[in-house]
Amino acid sequence: MTSPAPIVQEDRATATRRRILEVAEALFRSIGYQKTAVADIARELGMSPANVYRFFPSKSAINEAIAERLLSGVAGELDAVADGRGPAADRLRDMLRLLHARHLALFFREKRMHDMVSAAMSEHWGVIAAFIGRIEAAFARVLADGVARGEFAPLDPAVAARQLKQATFLWTHPVLIADCLEKRVSDEGQMAAELEEMLDLLLRGLRVDS
Amino acid sequence: MTSPAPIVQEDRATATRRRILEVAEALFRSIGYQKTAVADIARELGMSPANVYRFFPSKSAINEAIAERLLSGVAGELDAVADGRGPAADRLRDMLRLLHARHLALFFREKRMHDMVSAAMSEHWGVIAAFIGRIEAAFARVLADGVARGEFAPLDPAVAARQLKQATFLWTHPVLIADCLEKRVSDEGQMAAELEEMLDLLLRGLRVDS
Repeated sequence: MTSPAPIVQEDRATATRRRILEVAEALFRSIGYQKTAVADIARELGMSPANVYRFFPSKSAINEAIAERLLSGVAGELDAVADGRGPAADRLRDMLRLLHARHLALFFREKRMHDMVSAAMSEHWGVIAAFIGRIEAAFARVLADGVARGEFAPLDPAVAARQLKQATFLWTHPVLIADCLEKRVSDEGQMAAELEEMLDLLLRGLRVDS
Repeated sequence: MTSPAPIVQEDRATATRRRILEVAEALFRSIGYQKTAVADIARELGMSPANVYRFFPSKSAINEAIAERLLSGVAGELDAVADGRGPAADRLRDMLRLLHARHLALFFREKRMHDMVSAAMSEHWGVIAAFIGRIEAAFARVLADGVARGEFAPLDPAVAARQLKQATFLWTHPVLIADCLEKRVSDEGQMAAELEEMLDLLLRGLRVDS
């Protein structure tokens, strides 16, 4: 019989990691990710900064883990839409509406988290690349399904997925959304209406000629 | 008989404005627009800063005038393509290739001017809005012509022009081009190939069903 000790050990480590992230996220939301020091997180947890560093080698590793948690929630929602039933065109439309809505909500309701995601994007954290890869893969699945169903003309799903991402950048890139709204180039209603028009054009370009 | 004096006066003022801009542009290109002070421009011209301010109320007015000169050159080239012969789809494609090429050249060959245009965009100078408006108007002319020729399905030229601009932002926005290249997300060849693919998709979405 093998001892269960290593498993218990691992659970405890996982629990500690989770607690560190929960406290860090609460601090990020209340005072912002830039002003939160590892010492603040440690104090809140009643542990030493050295102990926090045993679980996360740097502040930046904590940032990444929190961004990862936030984005994997959105990616999970997108996967659920992608893998649903209904016409492929409708699923793609719903996915892009969802992506736009989530990034808009981040900007309006969770400004401090938005700042963190914007920083992650400009500093090119690995978690952002992983998120974008996961979204493109979900688009590609739906596109391949649409071709199989005869909805779309023959296409390379990976290429078309990248194009959907590129053509809708203005509605899904947190920094560009913020820029647009802060400079009042556009407002929420106008952005939503223009996204629908863009999706009409793109889906028209993808579909089988009637 | 009216005196010709005021006309001569105006010519002289125009010539002085032109000289100020020439000297300012040369300084912008050599030391950058941010480091160039109105005093530097005045010294180079052998005049007092107060005299420069008689022609341009602020450094920012000089910046705008130089950005305007630069961008109106590009807009003129675009108008020439827009008003040429040949299928509307080809002209739109050539316009977007040109816009991409000019902004790419700005980044690679005239980094200091690129910095100035980027600043103009982030500070939302009027000259940028005017440039974008002129480009959209040129797109709309070609789109209306394409509908009249039976190349494109019935569409609102202003809406479709805005969509062409929005969907190709990644290739025409100086700041996004720089971001893409500096982070090595993409390189020049890949960007050009992806622009062609995007234009295929968009023009397919615009054309009359066969």
